Amino acid sequence: MDSALPKITSMTTDEASKWLKERDNFLILTHIRPDGDTLGSACALCNALREDGKTAFVLRNNQVTRRYTDYTAPYWAEDFEPEYVISADIASEGLFTPNAEKYKGKIDLAIDHHPSNTGFAKNTLLDPESASCGETVYELLKHMFGAISKETATLLFIAVTTDTGCFRYGNTTARTLRVASELIEAGAPGAELNKRLFRTKTQARVNLESEILNNLEYGRDGKIATVVVTQEMIKKTGADEDDMEDIAAIHGQIEGVVVSITIREQEDFTSKISVRTSKLVDAGAICAKLGGGGHAMAAGVNLNCGVWEAREKILKAVDEVWK
Amino acid sequence: MDSALPKITSMTTDEASKWLKERDNFLILTHIRPDGDTLGSACALCNALREDGKTAFVLRNNQVTRRYTDYTAPYWAEDFEPEYVISADIASEGLFTPNAEKYKGKIDLAIDHHPSNTGFAKNTLLDPESASCGETVYELLKHMFGAISKETATLLFIAVTTDTGCFRYGNTTARTLRVASELIEAGAPGAELNKRLFRTKTQARVNLESEILNNLEYGRDGKIATVVVTQEMIKKTGADEDDMEDIAAIHGQIEGVVVSITIREQEDFTSKISVRTSKLVDAGAICAKLGGGGHAMAAGVNLNCGVWEAREKILKAVDEVWK
Repeated sequence: MDSALPKITSMTTDEASKWLKERDNFLILTHIRPDGDTLGSACALCNALREDGKTAFVLRNNQVTRRYTDYTAPYWAEDFEPEYVISADIASEGLFTPNAEKYKGKIDLAIDHHPSNTGFAKNTLLDPESASCGETVYELLKHMFGAISKETATLLFIAVTTDTGCFRYGNTTARTLRVASELIEAGAPGAELNKRLFRTKTQARVNLESEILNNLEYGRDGKIATVVVTQEMIKKTGADEDDMEDIAAIHGQIEGVVVSITIREQEDFTSKISVRTSKLVDAGAICAKLGGGGHAMAAGVNLNCGVWEAREKILKAVDEVWK
Repeated sequence: MDSALPKITSMTTDEASKWLKERDNFLILTHIRPDGDTLGSACALCNALREDGKTAFVLRNNQVTRRYTDYTAPYWAEDFEPEYVISADIASEGLFTPNAEKYKGKIDLAIDHHPSNTGFAKNTLLDPESASCGETVYELLKHMFGAISKETATLLFIAVTTDTGCFRYGNTTARTLRVASELIEAGAPGAELNKRLFRTKTQARVNLESEILNNLEYGRDGKIATVVVTQEMIKKTGADEDDMEDIAAIHGQIEGVVVSITIREQEDFTSKISVRTSKLVDAGAICAKLGGGGHAMAAGVNLNCGVWEAREKILKAVDEVWK
């Protein structure tokens, strides 16, 4: 469970700005299962440092999905020997990619917005008020350089818009929208990016959504919605990893649903469970019953059993936590 | 088809501001099939004028849907005798509600953002650069009063967010996001409103989406997606008018789809066709072939025939326009 209070003392934006200005030769890390925020934040920082005449790379993340391939391509390095290592949007060393193992204990600067940041880095710029790490990077770069380029703005817009579900999620604040507005003014093609990121679905995704909606099971008068996503369903629809993004959110939108559960059959026929809840029920407490964890409104657990047995177990855990 | 250039001369914001300041006893009109923009704009203006000590009402719109009932309730009047009549977000007198017929030719001030506004009013405040009429009303009220109340901000946020699909649509600009940011700063509960308006679906809506996705037919290698929505489907899913909102957008999101067609069976078994296109094809030209019309990327036509015959006709029209 996240605590609402950060566990560590953050640098000020001015301190982080000076720290970067005085140094050179940076490698920037992103987290496993990379999303738009870690990728956009890392690449934007890399791009702005390069524009300032410095040498900077982002450590290749092999899990990057189709959606972000083009935007991130110019920044990857596999074997760059840096003087300084920076992490972007990474809350703990447990979220490092395999090729970043050797940098554990050696991060010079962590830039993050997770209140749960463990303080693994020598220096941390932490802003838990930011909806996305991209918001924090934007304020930093604006402080450092006064203005940002179109390329940097585009990468930051990707970070800001994806971490807020295109400004729909509860983390969106007045500052988030102001930052997004300034990014468009700096040249980010906001409408084009939102069309590409939020209003384009593959046929496979559409088929998958249809399968999920067709296979929903409701419990407790519609307050619990459960779906089992089997390998057969995934193969039938032609969905790849990109198409599976955020599928747990689909039935959480349904009016009256308090707990939404997604049980996804893995290729080895074990089960990966996602639980989303409204404020009424603690998702983290439900998953903790089975050895998992997460946030109060979004949590998960992997079980070494088939999906139908997993379904029984998680529904029992819901009953134990939500009387 | 809309022209990109307004046909009429707009008042300046300062002129419209002075015009309102010097007058009293206003009735404000909304358009048929009211959306969040016409309702939010009209009620926000009404609320701000009342807070300034003036008498103002919004003429009851009997087509208002469940989603907006609570927000609009305090402002309705049925038989108020005004000194001045204002229209909000209405492009032409053809879009007046039946109870507003008597005000045709008698509108004192039209506030609008449609470039196609016909100039039916004695005075017009027209800003075709605004993504929503709410954006125009916000700039006007900020000019008039310097600041706006939480209630006014809430109504304007509804206008701004609904007309941009929660900032996802191509009409969203840097100014739109800046206005939304300022509305949250003025007290609009942005996250709560977006949750209610965009992240809550009824079970009936979910069932309907599922039916639509299950019944899609693709043509021309996936570039044309067509769905027929029958009365039987509507009844089976339990969908009401609120649940039918924007259903034409569902299959327009699919990757590779250039033309998406929705043929909806009416209660009298005639057909209502919606056509959405990407920039490659002119939706208005397709519908014009059958006597309908609209914009370049969104158009429609009603046909006095059954849905299957309507399907043949519209697909033929697509072939004629898009060779």
